[in-house]
Amino acid sequence: MKALVLSSGGIDSTTALAEAVQLFGHDNVVSLSVSYGQKHSKELQAAEAVAKYYEVEHLNIDISSIFEYSNCSLLAQSDEEIPRESYEEQISKTKGERPVSTYVPFRNGIFLSVAAGIALSKDCDTIYYGVHKDDAAGFAYPDCSDAFNNAISTAIWEGSGKALKVEAPFVNKNKADVVKRGLELKAPYELTWSCYEGGEKPCGVCGTCIDRARAFEANGVKDPAL
Amino acid sequence: MKALVLSSGGIDSTTALAEAVQLFGHDNVVSLSVSYGQKHSKELQAAEAVAKYYEVEHLNIDISSIFEYSNCSLLAQSDEEIPRESYEEQISKTKGERPVSTYVPFRNGIFLSVAAGIALSKDCDTIYYGVHKDDAAGFAYPDCSDAFNNAISTAIWEGSGKALKVEAPFVNKNKADVVKRGLELKAPYELTWSCYEGGEKPCGVCGTCIDRARAFEANGVKDPAL
Repeated sequence: MKALVLSSGGIDSTTALAEAVQLFGHDNVVSLSVSYGQKHSKELQAAEAVAKYYEVEHLNIDISSIFEYSNCSLLAQSDEEIPRESYEEQISKTKGERPVSTYVPFRNGIFLSVAAGIALSKDCDTIYYGVHKDDAAGFAYPDCSDAFNNAISTAIWEGSGKALKVEAPFVNKNKADVVKRGLELKAPYELTWSCYEGGEKPCGVCGTCIDRARAFEANGVKDPAL
Repeated sequence: MKALVLSSGGIDSTTALAEAVQLFGHDNVVSLSVSYGQKHSKELQAAEAVAKYYEVEHLNIDISSIFEYSNCSLLAQSDEEIPRESYEEQISKTKGERPVSTYVPFRNGIFLSVAAGIALSKDCDTIYYGVHKDDAAGFAYPDCSDAFNNAISTAIWEGSGKALKVEAPFVNKNKADVVKRGLELKAPYELTWSCYEGGEKPCGVCGTCIDRARAFEANGVKDPAL
């Protein structure tokens, strides 16, 4: 039994990694971060620090060439600004009819497929990732939905010759639940990075900073990374 | 309406490209070939030649780093020999319990996910690919099965925000049927390359050479690439 965990250096995937380490043991866990052309590398450094903390094998893969035709606001080549507002405010503008501007085209599908190829090569039988239901709300990130997760899990199971499962332990939970679980597991949140901007400190006003702050607040805990 | 076609330079994907060009017109078709670390580039040159023939936009993407941990016999770094026998002979050894040695880990899942990311960036609403049922037989390539195709198509539909469909026109046909359709469409088979080896001429003895020869024989036609 061996697991590969998609790790972005944020709190959701760090909690998924904490789950996997507890279940499989750190010798049987591989952490994978992905360079996809994002505007900064703070999250990649965080993913590496978290892997080091858990003493798991850590891989990084650069697939930025896949996204070179996209103008998504998270990407280095984009002239779009990263929205400085909550997801609710963004969804009120998209009316739930299209993804938000920080949706990277089919990112989770690409990450999970790439993870599947590497997991099979590294003799893993399970992939963990930290998707949760808040990100799917209002059509913001359609590649975080339950329907997507079920379909890609089946695709990976069937397409791997029934050798590889996908586990998404938080797909029906919200971000506050994820933090609750991570606090129980003593996940090293002080090492994580969520902010879409790559500043010295988190900006506090992008969608993911706002979401993160609320998730800690809901648990009555100070964010240890601030 | 605009389509992206996964093109490997072989007869299946060339026939899928012929279908897409007939339906969408060459101005609304993008062809995508993938460098994944294969032992030779003959098929990539063929994909480019076919795209040129049809006067469609052609892209190539290099994702070979994803497969660097694999020892699949098709890959440049592998010390495995490419089997010089038909798929039936290979399946009699695997007993239909595992994929054949030329199965590249989750290749079709990765190719389709990458195609989805690029298709969304290029404003396409449809992906075509040339999967057919012979390749799924005996568990040889599980990422060619109907079950896989249905699941990945749903994953791409849901994960793209219901913006992108997958069309696999031959998923329930055999390779002889594909050639029959390609002959009707006057697909430029003389430009294609199928052989797993990268020699001056096709080796004639690898699984895909044997399959290709049989598909032309079944249609009573000489292979124009020989």
